[in-house]
Amino acid sequence: MSDQAGQRPSPAQRIGVLGGGQLGRMLGLAGIPLGMSFVFLDPAADACAAATGELLQAGFSDTGAARDLAARVDVATFDFENVPESTARTLLDTCPFYPAPNALGASQDRITESELISGLGIQVPPWFKVSSRTDLLEALDTLGYPAVLKTRRMGYDGKGQAVLRDQEDLERAWQRLGDFELILQSFVPFDLECSMVAVRGLNGDTKIWPLIRNVHSNGILMLSLPGVFDQALQLKAAEKMRTLLEHLDYIGVLTMEFFLSQGELLVNEFAPRVHNSGHWTIDGASCSQFENHLRAVAGLPLGETEMTGCSIMFNWIGAMPDQVKAMAIPGLHWHDYGKAPRPGRKIGHATLTAATMEELKFNANRLAGIAGGEFPALLRDIFD
Amino acid sequence: MSDQAGQRPSPAQRIGVLGGGQLGRMLGLAGIPLGMSFVFLDPAADACAAATGELLQAGFSDTGAARDLAARVDVATFDFENVPESTARTLLDTCPFYPAPNALGASQDRITESELISGLGIQVPPWFKVSSRTDLLEALDTLGYPAVLKTRRMGYDGKGQAVLRDQEDLERAWQRLGDFELILQSFVPFDLECSMVAVRGLNGDTKIWPLIRNVHSNGILMLSLPGVFDQALQLKAAEKMRTLLEHLDYIGVLTMEFFLSQGELLVNEFAPRVHNSGHWTIDGASCSQFENHLRAVAGLPLGETEMTGCSIMFNWIGAMPDQVKAMAIPGLHWHDYGKAPRPGRKIGHATLTAATMEELKFNANRLAGIAGGEFPALLRDIFD
Repeated sequence: MSDQAGQRPSPAQRIGVLGGGQLGRMLGLAGIPLGMSFVFLDPAADACAAATGELLQAGFSDTGAARDLAARVDVATFDFENVPESTARTLLDTCPFYPAPNALGASQDRITESELISGLGIQVPPWFKVSSRTDLLEALDTLGYPAVLKTRRMGYDGKGQAVLRDQEDLERAWQRLGDFELILQSFVPFDLECSMVAVRGLNGDTKIWPLIRNVHSNGILMLSLPGVFDQALQLKAAEKMRTLLEHLDYIGVLTMEFFLSQGELLVNEFAPRVHNSGHWTIDGASCSQFENHLRAVAGLPLGETEMTGCSIMFNWIGAMPDQVKAMAIPGLHWHDYGKAPRPGRKIGHATLTAATMEELKFNANRLAGIAGGEFPALLRDIFD
Repeated sequence: MSDQAGQRPSPAQRIGVLGGGQLGRMLGLAGIPLGMSFVFLDPAADACAAATGELLQAGFSDTGAARDLAARVDVATFDFENVPESTARTLLDTCPFYPAPNALGASQDRITESELISGLGIQVPPWFKVSSRTDLLEALDTLGYPAVLKTRRMGYDGKGQAVLRDQEDLERAWQRLGDFELILQSFVPFDLECSMVAVRGLNGDTKIWPLIRNVHSNGILMLSLPGVFDQALQLKAAEKMRTLLEHLDYIGVLTMEFFLSQGELLVNEFAPRVHNSGHWTIDGASCSQFENHLRAVAGLPLGETEMTGCSIMFNWIGAMPDQVKAMAIPGLHWHDYGKAPRPGRKIGHATLTAATMEELKFNANRLAGIAGGEFPALLRDIFD
């Protein structure tokens, strides 16, 4: 080993990130202790990742700015998946860029994504491509109500989609979305939603965090509770995950979102990046999704993904709860993204950690009481 | 509670730090998720804390710069204790400054420090003030060889001190240190060295991390192993800690260093700040010393100080070990301070965490093998 040390390429230290939101900010916080420095490219002058690196203020389609970024870093990555293909190609001309555009391309288009996943023998909800009103009516004939109409591209946090329960929903949705290329998915009568976050390194080594139960409201993630599923389900999900990672020869963190329906996991979508449902890993796992994404793209060995205790994550949407009251709860880890509050905007999260599930539930109920809104009811559901 | 919320002062968000070294950098990393922003005052253009905030490049005695700093923050603190008194007073004219100058003053002067601690009924090694060669000879008559001659002020990491074992040592030490005000301390035949890190909040609430076993080499900390002492010793140390914190009406993190000699704890010195022997708390405790110092000075409730598993910290002095090999060890947390390597300079540390002491020992031995130098021998001592 030691005689080969001289030939091994040095780990990357200057990291370029397309996007300077909270995911970029948390990548920066994880990477600074690893000796890394960061350059973020983002159109917003107040991009919150700037607290942990340099901000290059430019549009995501600005290939000149992308070239500037690439020239100043050892490796580039992104904190959101709607990176224009031209920008990805520009970066790749100058520096390594992970995850590779094949994953990015597939995740940007719900039809490519569904075809890719089905093609790997992984179950997805039944779906039809919708390019016209006729397509939609034919697809509804087969799938029946309820169904979910989604734009092929640029959807996130429940944006660009509508649940169709009847003719009236159909008309409203068509008025709103009819100008886009669409996909109609069967509405899966799921028991619950869950996700899996995994990381694959330059050498193909793969590590997987425990399966996470998620609770959404209006398409936005509200709560994540990892480590509450049995080993059999964990293995089923991990098999799907490994199949996709290997097919894509993937480098970095990838997240799969599932519907759990009658004991079966259906893939709803995947995200080729660190994910909101993995934020608990900062405080609740040996190595966080942010550190492991950086380890992967920089060519470092991957860190351990096991939980260090029990964890639950609360997402703060539009407003933060009373900080002093919340931080008085034992085991509370506060994450303020430094973003201006706006309705529906993710501006922070908190992870509670505890040695036992009883302690976790007790403290989670305290936090739900302080946070108010839907949290007490959602928490009752998740712990039912 | 809730009707009084409006009267409660908001937690401080803009934090000024005198000093921009690795302690400032780790304060910044802990504070950004709390929604804080940082301004560091440091004479070095390449002060490594600048990765986590703004750097005001100025000397520590520059009262104009101190005034600038104070005007731009909600509260000020420091990352090293040799802050000139005039600077501390300048800051206090404009903004809260914690810990207060009483602790700072006492810790800057080994005689004031020893008098303060003895005055509280806490045992310290026997000592004499030395202002002349005659003083030194008289003190040696009483204490006998071996003894330790130290400068009253500006000592750290073994600098400004000499162990006197015979007449020859005495002559050499006097040539080097005779121009300074000095203190002669009895050389305690200690079994081992340990330290305690604690935090006290604005409301007097106090939290204490587990007692830490430390191994030094040439006066520089090399290894810290927390949580390996019995409850009786933990309580003895905690009593001394609480006595000092309450006497000083202290706000923030304070560290006490002890000699353990025949079952008794003698206070060697205290530091009114986060401390190298507490770095393991970032990865190995529910709340780190850095976060809790910020919680304290910002008026937030304190976090829990219990360990989340087993931990050991390795200090990297002058050079970092092979990063790729080290980071392949499970449970390894890498901390590169982004400082230029120089002999004797602290440029990083690593904390190993594990679920059991057996696993910790196994991985610590792997790391010691990779790090080389004195580590394998020091590690055998600490785990003997």
